[in-house]
Amino acid sequence: MQFLMVPLNFAFEGKEVNYINTGQWSKKAIAEAKKIGKNVHVAATSEDRNFAYIPKTWKLSDNPAYLHITTNNTIFGTEWKKDPDIPAGIPLIADMSSNFMSKPIEVKKYDLIYAGAQKNVGPAGAVVVIIKKSLLEKANPGLPTMLDYNTHAKKGSMFNTPPCWTIYMIGLVLKWVESFGGLAMVEKNNIAKADYIYKVIDESNGFYKGTVDKEDRSLMNITFRMESEELEALFISEAKKQGMIGLKGHRDVGGCRASTYNSLPLPAAKALSEFMREFQKKNG
Amino acid sequence: MQFLMVPLNFAFEGKEVNYINTGQWSKKAIAEAKKIGKNVHVAATSEDRNFAYIPKTWKLSDNPAYLHITTNNTIFGTEWKKDPDIPAGIPLIADMSSNFMSKPIEVKKYDLIYAGAQKNVGPAGAVVVIIKKSLLEKANPGLPTMLDYNTHAKKGSMFNTPPCWTIYMIGLVLKWVESFGGLAMVEKNNIAKADYIYKVIDESNGFYKGTVDKEDRSLMNITFRMESEELEALFISEAKKQGMIGLKGHRDVGGCRASTYNSLPLPAAKALSEFMREFQKKNG
Repeated sequence: MQFLMVPLNFAFEGKEVNYINTGQWSKKAIAEAKKIGKNVHVAATSEDRNFAYIPKTWKLSDNPAYLHITTNNTIFGTEWKKDPDIPAGIPLIADMSSNFMSKPIEVKKYDLIYAGAQKNVGPAGAVVVIIKKSLLEKANPGLPTMLDYNTHAKKGSMFNTPPCWTIYMIGLVLKWVESFGGLAMVEKNNIAKADYIYKVIDESNGFYKGTVDKEDRSLMNITFRMESEELEALFISEAKKQGMIGLKGHRDVGGCRASTYNSLPLPAAKALSEFMREFQKKNG
Repeated sequence: MQFLMVPLNFAFEGKEVNYINTGQWSKKAIAEAKKIGKNVHVAATSEDRNFAYIPKTWKLSDNPAYLHITTNNTIFGTEWKKDPDIPAGIPLIADMSSNFMSKPIEVKKYDLIYAGAQKNVGPAGAVVVIIKKSLLEKANPGLPTMLDYNTHAKKGSMFNTPPCWTIYMIGLVLKWVESFGGLAMVEKNNIAKADYIYKVIDESNGFYKGTVDKEDRSLMNITFRMESEELEALFISEAKKQGMIGLKGHRDVGGCRASTYNSLPLPAAKALSEFMREFQKKNG
């Protein structure tokens, strides 16, 4: 719904909405802004190499309403490691659905952050939205009630009956994050988890081929390919025998994908890395 | 969101959307259709007597896109006891949020039924929508993706990540309804519950004053007033001491309101009726 609400609320007359296209989710956000007739400018795209990297430069339009980025790309396995620097006064909007709460972020650098709860925040069925008041005040008037960010801001997110249990569970997750040592510790843990697996890829002499540029590797979704689809299928089925599931890559990239969201414990990532080394020994 | 989606999808060029106004929720539905610029015709309203009854006649516009009703009115305590008869070919659309699954309904009489889960269906955070294919096929094209009923119909309600736990819980509620003897038994139970309380009102010689016409009394929300606001306040605080809460009426009608949704067991309704008789003895 945010793909729709962001341009509805913040695409202003005579301005262009700017997007950086880093994969499937960016594309959907762009398509929705176009669908409702907004003037969309794609400021950068990594589609030339099948989204294997995060663009390091971009060209904003003359009169940008905002710049929208997708901070983690679940399907392709890339992640923004640095907040983009853009001229002051241009709202920076980020879809952080798949890496929100995986690490500390400088919230104040963003004018609007949104994140579906279902990765690191809590159960499916809620979205976290953080908006600067300065942006909220500029929102287009006369919008349908439920699509107007001001409706929800004014009513403390209780304009309609809120999904109480989901919010309660999010509270428990937040307490768990605190007890874990906060987001700094969560990030350390996520780095350690990803390192286990990326290290095997890098030391495999090409048996496992990482699909994205090293500097843009996601801490949440680790994508890799092998020499043949048959070998990948064998890998996935052997892993399953060890109780490791969900390792098949998305059909748009194929191959394998290990997702290492907050809820995956470090020993599970270690176990996968060990399995990968053994699998290479047997089949390399 | 359905207040928005219904007119977006089914208000057709050159036709008027028809609504029967039976209270707060109807008003919101009407307001939303107007807000998005649809041609709204109010075919009947019970506002003349502060929504104390359900209109028995109505006057549709010349070229109605649909007729929308609200089958139960939580704030005012009225309920449609009979499906409205309207000319064939005019889609009948009903907001059944507060009485869906409280009794058997003839689903086929309606072209579209919607109901927020949070009354009798399950936890807050999901909406049940039942649409005839014949209506779905006529939906306006080019709508925002998430607001297009066809998006959700085509993807089996899994276009976006569904609220899994909420749906799981709804499944458990459905099993509970089956084990209870189905909706026929649920209705019998609801009638028995409501009868306990309405009987006290009717036998109180005006100590408790039902706020709506007897024939339109809701089985879900029983509204009544007493001689003074002071007495009502005493009633509510004394009830609280007995562990009976949530009896304060909505601020728009004042007085008292007992909600008797499916999850309220029969002995609770009986206990309230006994408390009401005792309270009258002491204060009548």
